[in-house]
Amino acid sequence: MELGVGGSNPPSCTKKMSKEKKMKPSKELPLGFVDRQEKELLTRDFIISNIKEVMIKYGFQYLETPSFEYTDSIGKFLPDKDRPGEGVFSFKDEKKWLSLRYDLTAPLARYVAKNYLEIPKPFKRYQLGTVWRNEKPGPGRYREFLQFDADYVGTKNLQADAELCVLISEILEKCGLEKVDYTVKISSRKFTDKLFEKLKITSKDQISTTLRALDKIDRLGWKEAKKLLGKGRKDKSGDYTKGANLNNDQIKIIEDTLNSANPNSEDVEKIIEIFRAYNFKNYKFDPSVIRGLEYYTGPIFEVNLNFEVKNLKGQAIQFGSIGGGGRYDNLVNNFGNFDCPATGISIGLDRLVYALMQKKDFKIKSTRPIIICIFDKNRIKEYIEILTRLRDSNISAELYPGEGKLKKQMEYANKIDSPAVILYGDDEIKSGKPTLKNLETGNESSIKIEDLTNEIKKIL
Amino acid sequence: MELGVGGSNPPSCTKKMSKEKKMKPSKELPLGFVDRQEKELLTRDFIISNIKEVMIKYGFQYLETPSFEYTDSIGKFLPDKDRPGEGVFSFKDEKKWLSLRYDLTAPLARYVAKNYLEIPKPFKRYQLGTVWRNEKPGPGRYREFLQFDADYVGTKNLQADAELCVLISEILEKCGLEKVDYTVKISSRKFTDKLFEKLKITSKDQISTTLRALDKIDRLGWKEAKKLLGKGRKDKSGDYTKGANLNNDQIKIIEDTLNSANPNSEDVEKIIEIFRAYNFKNYKFDPSVIRGLEYYTGPIFEVNLNFEVKNLKGQAIQFGSIGGGGRYDNLVNNFGNFDCPATGISIGLDRLVYALMQKKDFKIKSTRPIIICIFDKNRIKEYIEILTRLRDSNISAELYPGEGKLKKQMEYANKIDSPAVILYGDDEIKSGKPTLKNLETGNESSIKIEDLTNEIKKIL
Repeated sequence: MELGVGGSNPPSCTKKMSKEKKMKPSKELPLGFVDRQEKELLTRDFIISNIKEVMIKYGFQYLETPSFEYTDSIGKFLPDKDRPGEGVFSFKDEKKWLSLRYDLTAPLARYVAKNYLEIPKPFKRYQLGTVWRNEKPGPGRYREFLQFDADYVGTKNLQADAELCVLISEILEKCGLEKVDYTVKISSRKFTDKLFEKLKITSKDQISTTLRALDKIDRLGWKEAKKLLGKGRKDKSGDYTKGANLNNDQIKIIEDTLNSANPNSEDVEKIIEIFRAYNFKNYKFDPSVIRGLEYYTGPIFEVNLNFEVKNLKGQAIQFGSIGGGGRYDNLVNNFGNFDCPATGISIGLDRLVYALMQKKDFKIKSTRPIIICIFDKNRIKEYIEILTRLRDSNISAELYPGEGKLKKQMEYANKIDSPAVILYGDDEIKSGKPTLKNLETGNESSIKIEDLTNEIKKIL
Repeated sequence: MELGVGGSNPPSCTKKMSKEKKMKPSKELPLGFVDRQEKELLTRDFIISNIKEVMIKYGFQYLETPSFEYTDSIGKFLPDKDRPGEGVFSFKDEKKWLSLRYDLTAPLARYVAKNYLEIPKPFKRYQLGTVWRNEKPGPGRYREFLQFDADYVGTKNLQADAELCVLISEILEKCGLEKVDYTVKISSRKFTDKLFEKLKITSKDQISTTLRALDKIDRLGWKEAKKLLGKGRKDKSGDYTKGANLNNDQIKIIEDTLNSANPNSEDVEKIIEIFRAYNFKNYKFDPSVIRGLEYYTGPIFEVNLNFEVKNLKGQAIQFGSIGGGGRYDNLVNNFGNFDCPATGISIGLDRLVYALMQKKDFKIKSTRPIIICIFDKNRIKEYIEILTRLRDSNISAELYPGEGKLKKQMEYANKIDSPAVILYGDDEIKSGKPTLKNLETGNESSIKIEDLTNEIKKIL
């Protein structure tokens, strides 16, 4: 097989390379994919460990489905299938098509259908996993991201929907957010259904356009979104978007409905009552919350961050939603005769990490090692003795791992932000007293080997 | 776009489905992919947290590259390209081919080339990530697995190679393995190079066949592997494998070399000397360790488990390697003029999890919630009060999340292995004393609300 590269279609560019031996492979990443660095990863680990703690406390089972599913198992259920350019990564297997999951909900539905007889009912599970979207990438818009999902499958009990909002708030507060920093917005598909009855519109097209306009109120403000409810709107770039063509009376009905503090929807009222029992107040009824139009069947929720976040260009932006969810009572029974009402929440962890790293007072501790410099290769035994001493005391430390002279070793120590180096040359070895050089202050001190770990702990 | 499914070729089976609306999607997983359950995931988390602790202590930087790379960046460097049926999942982008990574080393080489000016030199990084192989799946042979890699890039210092063996041993012992449970085997490509000089063979084909035969000594024993060094061997199924066609004198040279305890290879001797300084004894010089024939350029190592493990059929098996690595001095400079000698180790975490879960005395604590039963939907407030009390004391607990009567609730509690249920009906609410029922013993006791958390902690 050519160059060991298989799959459905061996790539042609690789073929070419085997002929032109001098062509260098690309050093770049495909658009929409990124390398992630330590600070970001440690922040993510911190969030994930908080999630896991809360999930255990709330009695959710830990599950992991694979990256690939048969395309027909997940292909039908794209939540946003009305969005253009949306897609998944698909591969032809020997007989059938496989796809990389685009969310964690469709695989959950497949899992429940496959294991229907064995699972507890209701079934509560959480999952952390990468999902892929074969979308057109843009700034800050990736084609691979990490999601956290928690779902209840097999219950109509609105206690489940309410608890999803409560638990996400507990996770965010464990991560250091305060109540002012986030809001859980709730609404219900039933509320919008009622609204459309009042508006007397039934055309699927008009309903979709109206919902999309409502969804944009947050970003554009009412005045601009109103244009999208009417004839249409020209944006800053001059692009024109056709509106829902509602008349003034209809737009007035929407405005009044949005302004009423009354959910006027039984399920939302019930959820708010449960919130009270939890003493959970950090929610807001917001009928402009729409999400997955053809997907949700009851309550819907969205988690918004309110603190200042800057985009990749350094401009302060309204960061908005880090995720949300809602009730999807018809997903699992697509697989067969399973009566499986369900509700779930999904959080985009990369977005949460991005925002959290910018939050005032948020700090993640990143540990850089102490460097033991190498003066004489024949003294490795002595250096390793010190190294082992430090590591046994749980101090991050390393022998300089390269082959350079002292100058290069110091450059290396500075480059990796090492807090201190240990100099242990012939004289120091003779006296049994290594020199500890604090790289922040520049101070050098001669220290007995037995006292080294204590002195270093003072620096750290 | 049809059904929101994109990619290079929209799958045909999905097309059919949109015509035949009643066809149900598959509930099954593609071959070579699995759902993973809580016990396995918690064991994996335990291993990962040990890895991270050791990596910090050893001064490695935490890095994550994405799942996809341009195919030409990684396609050339398949370590085992002589193995048949080997392949990657590839996908046509707008202009170029992308592939899911099949290991973490090729992406590291790309990362180093891309960021050559910015990274510290040497560069030490570790990564945890899923890799994919588009191979023919079999029992226990998956197409997606989780790897842990640690690498030194930009150093010829054999201290690096030695430390990789030391750190993997520290990780395994942190996971609960004892010295008898594992062995780090080491050898060197230089050792085999010398052997071929002695054997006076230069044909690439004969060298490969000889190396493959050596690699099989562990599994087949010397007597059978010897046949593969000679004319060839018929296996149990009757399949015949052609041998390396060495004569008896040559085979005798190999036998003597394998039996000599002397590495006869400068780099291995140097590494063993460094092991002594670390007081690391759990290694074995083993010239039959081969790994990635065209990939490694110097020392090579392999991590083997020695305790009894059963396969999926329940048969005790020789589990063998969970990973390994070695020096690959020529990988990074494929991207350009980078002089980047490197060495690394790679561990298959799913295999380690599988083995560890079977180790005698290994236990992972899985927490199942206390269930608060629901007698009266109008009493939700009282139930939530108890629920919050338990969770505030960090006890895993939940209100019964479904809608069934008490019998169903008890079935649910048993199904999820709940340690206890709380019964809080009208009488109990009046007296302020819920009933705590221990599901292991069947004991019921009436307990004051204030004492509930303490009583439950006694049970857990």
